Amino acid sequence: MKVFGSDNYSSVHPAVLEQLAQVNSGHAVAYGDDPVTAEAVEVLRRHVGPDTDIRFCFNGTGSNIVGLSALLAPWDAVVCAANAHINTDECGAAEHMAGIKLYPVLAPADGKLTPELIAPVLDANLGFEHARQPKVVSISNATEFGTVYTPDELRALCDYAHSRGLLVHCDGARLANAAAALDVPIAAITSEVGLDALTFGGTKNALMGAEAVVIFNTRHHSGLWQTRKQNAQLASKMRFVAAQFTALYSGDLWRECAAGANAMAARFVAGLGQLGVTPVYSPDANEIFAVLPDAVRMPLIERFHFYPWDSIPGGVRWVCSWDTTADEVDDFLAALEEALDGLSD
Amino acid sequence: MKVFGSDNYSSVHPAVLEQLAQVNSGHAVAYGDDPVTAEAVEVLRRHVGPDTDIRFCFNGTGSNIVGLSALLAPWDAVVCAANAHINTDECGAAEHMAGIKLYPVLAPADGKLTPELIAPVLDANLGFEHARQPKVVSISNATEFGTVYTPDELRALCDYAHSRGLLVHCDGARLANAAAALDVPIAAITSEVGLDALTFGGTKNALMGAEAVVIFNTRHHSGLWQTRKQNAQLASKMRFVAAQFTALYSGDLWRECAAGANAMAARFVAGLGQLGVTPVYSPDANEIFAVLPDAVRMPLIERFHFYPWDSIPGGVRWVCSWDTTADEVDDFLAALEEALDGLSD
Amino acid sequence: MKVFGSDNYSSVHPAVLEQLAQVNSGHAVAYGDDPVTAEAVEVLRRHVGPDTDIRFCFNGTGSNIVGLSALLAPWDAVVCAANAHINTDECGAAEHMAGIKLYPVLAPADGKLTPELIAPVLDANLGFEHARQPKVVSISNATEFGTVYTPDELRALCDYAHSRGLLVHCDGARLANAAAALDVPIAAITSEVGLDALTFGGTKNALMGAEAVVIFNTRHHSGLWQTRKQNAQLASKMRFVAAQFTALYSGDLWRECAAGANAMAARFVAGLGQLGVTPVYSPDANEIFAVLPDAVRMPLIERFHFYPWDSIPGGVRWVCSWDTTADEVDDFLAALEEALDGLSD
Amino acid sequence: MKVFGSDNYSSVHPAVLEQLAQVNSGHAVAYGDDPVTAEAVEVLRRHVGPDTDIRFCFNGTGSNIVGLSALLAPWDAVVCAANAHINTDECGAAEHMAGIKLYPVLAPADGKLTPELIAPVLDANLGFEHARQPKVVSISNATEFGTVYTPDELRALCDYAHSRGLLVHCDGARLANAAAALDVPIAAITSEVGLDALTFGGTKNALMGAEAVVIFNTRHHSGLWQTRKQNAQLASKMRFVAAQFTALYSGDLWRECAAGANAMAARFVAGLGQLGVTPVYSPDANEIFAVLPDAVRMPLIERFHFYPWDSIPGGVRWVCSWDTTADEVDDFLAALEEALDGLSD
Repeated sequence: MKVFGSDNYSSVHPAVLEQLAQVNSGHAVAYGDDPVTAEAVEVLRRHVGPDTDIRFCFNGTGSNIVGLSALLAPWDAVVCAANAHINTDECGAAEHMAGIKLYPVLAPADGKLTPELIAPVLDANLGFEHARQPKVVSISNATEFGTVYTPDELRALCDYAHSRGLLVHCDGARLANAAAALDVPIAAITSEVGLDALTFGGTKNALMGAEAVVIFNTRHHSGLWQTRKQNAQLASKMRFVAAQFTALYSGDLWRECAAGANAMAARFVAGLGQLGVTPVYSPDANEIFAVLPDAVRMPLIERFHFYPWDSIPGGVRWVCSWDTTADEVDDFLAALEEALDGLSD
Repeated sequence: MKVFGSDNYSSVHPAVLEQLAQVNSGHAVAYGDDPVTAEAVEVLRRHVGPDTDIRFCFNGTGSNIVGLSALLAPWDAVVCAANAHINTDECGAAEHMAGIKLYPVLAPADGKLTPELIAPVLDANLGFEHARQPKVVSISNATEFGTVYTPDELRALCDYAHSRGLLVHCDGARLANAAAALDVPIAAITSEVGLDALTFGGTKNALMGAEAVVIFNTRHHSGLWQTRKQNAQLASKMRFVAAQFTALYSGDLWRECAAGANAMAARFVAGLGQLGVTPVYSPDANEIFAVLPDAVRMPLIERFHFYPWDSIPGGVRWVCSWDTTADEVDDFLAALEEALDGLSD
Repeated sequence: MKVFGSDNYSSVHPAVLEQLAQVNSGHAVAYGDDPVTAEAVEVLRRHVGPDTDIRFCFNGTGSNIVGLSALLAPWDAVVCAANAHINTDECGAAEHMAGIKLYPVLAPADGKLTPELIAPVLDANLGFEHARQPKVVSISNATEFGTVYTPDELRALCDYAHSRGLLVHCDGARLANAAAALDVPIAAITSEVGLDALTFGGTKNALMGAEAVVIFNTRHHSGLWQTRKQNAQLASKMRFVAAQFTALYSGDLWRECAAGANAMAARFVAGLGQLGVTPVYSPDANEIFAVLPDAVRMPLIERFHFYPWDSIPGGVRWVCSWDTTADEVDDFLAALEEALDGLSD
Repeated sequence: MKVFGSDNYSSVHPAVLEQLAQVNSGHAVAYGDDPVTAEAVEVLRRHVGPDTDIRFCFNGTGSNIVGLSALLAPWDAVVCAANAHINTDECGAAEHMAGIKLYPVLAPADGKLTPELIAPVLDANLGFEHARQPKVVSISNATEFGTVYTPDELRALCDYAHSRGLLVHCDGARLANAAAALDVPIAAITSEVGLDALTFGGTKNALMGAEAVVIFNTRHHSGLWQTRKQNAQLASKMRFVAAQFTALYSGDLWRECAAGANAMAARFVAGLGQLGVTPVYSPDANEIFAVLPDAVRMPLIERFHFYPWDSIPGGVRWVCSWDTTADEVDDFLAALEEALDGLSD
């Protein structure tokens, strides 16, 4: 069974399992002080630059907390989109684990922040004793809504944030999909635009369960080795986390997987268009949001296991994964066509 | 290379990798709502009883926080041995992530708590407005020092804790080694003695990276599904965490692995005895602590990568793993003999 | 000097200082176990009902945290207006001190929540594993914007919250002003409408520095004695906090002070009307918000020390206090008239 | 009634009430931006030096958290005596409010830390990834046990801490008693010995409820204005907190009060000596600990309201306050003599 519920549903690329088997030899020093981990760090540095502190973590929520915490004093705050994952889908981990105050900004439907959108929060709070001090702007790229920040948009946001004394963090759970969509190297949307911290996602793009926190300017990273440990994200048998990244990022496999998912989404969107269904956000990467008639929506959800998206009335979300095939997309489109036809009978 | 540094250094049992490959087929609902995870829960319930809430986590620190948090109000506290892992080796995760106050009890060298040891903490603090209220006693079995609580010792501790209105949590990072050492089922040192919560360890016993939190009496577990998520321990591709447990616990492989490590430790101890080296704590499971002459200690540490244990002057720790072989033990003992002989020259 | 900056600028009623002098005799048991404190609790119970747990605290932020924490498990969340004091003016104390997640609701300009406004937050989050669970609705009465909830509005909100399994907390920093504005007893807007917890404000209404947390239904209050202490809000020389409430609430002095402030605000509003200036929110209690021409605004702010209110373009806030006099209001209105006249020259 | 229960039981010096009445005139800007507060800061700077950041707080627990938090990153820890107030009497406020990890050191009975006592904690944890990093040594002067650190002892401790990269915080709830006991200025046991942060106590020495946090080296204090606010210790009507310090510290009243309490303790100790009762710790300031026969202990506790001190079998604590009189001491001694005589009958 393969479905359109989430890229978290997807399988693991065989090359990852092979890599895990390959590093499963003898003993390795625990907690990351081993050659497998060192190699994976060097592999990722080829993508995000040499002056980086890179630490592997278990999952996206953990990585976001670990990276943000490394940038924040307890009296600092994070500006993010109201519909950011850290605000809506992490069960208040930021507040609970690290006492972080989020300033949610009502972002446009596509989830993208701009200098104009964040300026009022900074104006209202910077220097005001009764307010937690904004210190980090956290964005997602690709966003939760399948849109992708361009390098220019990122640079403008980073420049603005830096000009106000803030740093920029990127939740890159779907970073590979963003880079593939733009057809640029990872560096073009991370180190080269001025990011200060990154959750470098792996799990959603064919890994088993591995994320990395990257701090770009090592003058900000004094506590990263500690924020990972004290937030319970330090793996003891680290080689089995790190090796997953090596499998994907030592060559072009990461891009192949991400571009594959994006291509399936493009095929999906094209098919929708022929059926008169228009995405509600720009389907830049591997996620598609649309509205379906109710009589069609629920039966299809039951059969193909994707999610209703109730913040849009009648809304649904489809996600394509690295392992989604053209046949699977076509099968779904055929079923959708049949269901829509049924309506007009 | 295989060494005596830690069971965290050990490799992954091939059966685990096979199980991972086997479940890597098609899509699976994320976050644990999938049949692979359901099966793993049922497999573990055969060991810890049917009336249990079982949730898989990434690592030991995370599992300890998730399990303790499910039992504690913010004004409650945890009584533990001063040398407990949660107090000394988790970078203050309990305090940082969950605001937990620990009452460290100066335990005897073997790390085992008794009713007599914890009574003064309860007497001094229960009902006193200026003190965080003791609510949970947290023990480790096997302890950090390689000793093992017997069922009778556990029952006495649980009965006493319950009689004072407290609950009991067990950090079972080496639970399998304890059960194997006692030659009893898991239930005999968990559900049957009155534990309320357990970190069911897997990583140290041949898994890749998987732990489980067990709550034994479901009236205490209202928040477990939330404490896991809000402490960043909820895996998205859960099947790859859960399946590891299935590989080990659906049959007797867990005991085979743990008993193997224990047997190598016993062989190690026997060899030490012939060289006149006596363990400082009872080597009940797979860890051995001893004192070596300085001229011997550091060269051997360099060569065989085990740890100095400086809380004991001249101390060292050796850990045997599921993949430790008799030859490796014998090789080390030969090197030790040679080094000790060199001293007397 | 008396100004319109804040009721926090106001002086202390002489009766309060007299009461402090009166209880300053000999020794009293510390931390609230003294007759002065017991008397003050009984005095307040006459206003909020006998089945209440009442604990004195230092300030409003502390009281809000103490009261909310007594109602919340760590996996629970608080629904509040986006412009609530706990969200905008307490430096993230809720997140920092207690790990609380706030769900800010974009309230209408008057700051009042309704069942309709909070329903979507509950629908989106209740039962969703990835979301902190809404457990408490926190309102302010009077609101930050000088509007007052009527008993009917409060009852509707409490009934709705309870029907969804939530509790209701009221930040009553200006509770006396609200009751005076409605000309009802305190009970009519607290115990009788179904509130579960209250910050019973004193400081803004002629006290020196004293607030009280009230829990209305003692089945919810198990931890209040601890949440006060562990949030550093337990006074050692408690009699000097408690006695302040006795001075004001053993008779009608509280209403006299609050009604006085409200009456001065009404006089102020009437005068504004004659000058063609209309409040932007309904000036129900002792706060007035309006828009002034820029040429007038800043010079008057400099001279009379009130606050620009930049969330409204050109906005200002005036607050009348218990010690504001008619002459002071009239003097300001005369100056405003002169300034406005100057514009039209 | 005046008793020996605690200096927290004591009354407020009339000069303090007079000062409060005097500043109760007109309006004052809230939250400390007023001339009364500015004056009090200058008054205290005459005692602790000009290069200090001084912020008034409500109570000792709050001040300790505010001051420690200003020195700590979330991955730092505090070394303190196991019997320190922050470890035993603040309901885990440090852990709860600020996620602080305490490393309690088993101090000798007199509660005083030395370089020798703290060195092992530093050796075991500094640079170890799995341990929270020791960053601050927190002491109490006078200690919880009535002993007083001399300037030399303080300087040795500060020098050692600084040499290891740590800072030193002093809980000075009874700082005035310490300075009076040593007959030195406040500076001699604070700024001149190298302290980095101080809780400057007032409440126990004749104030109503006022403490101050002092940061000595302003390069460490970047967040103090925020840590006070976010820990709910920022008073709105600040002038009434600040003025209390002015009353006591603009002249010698503070020393008069503290020396008075100390003198009564000395008289008490002398009387005990004549009855054959020897203090168990050196009664350097205003607290006395001793052991009494059980038949004597409980009846006297009931009558004179002092505390049993059960960490010493048969132990009791007496505290003299600024308002304790010689007659009160003599009355108690007479009662004790009678009770002891009754034993030998």
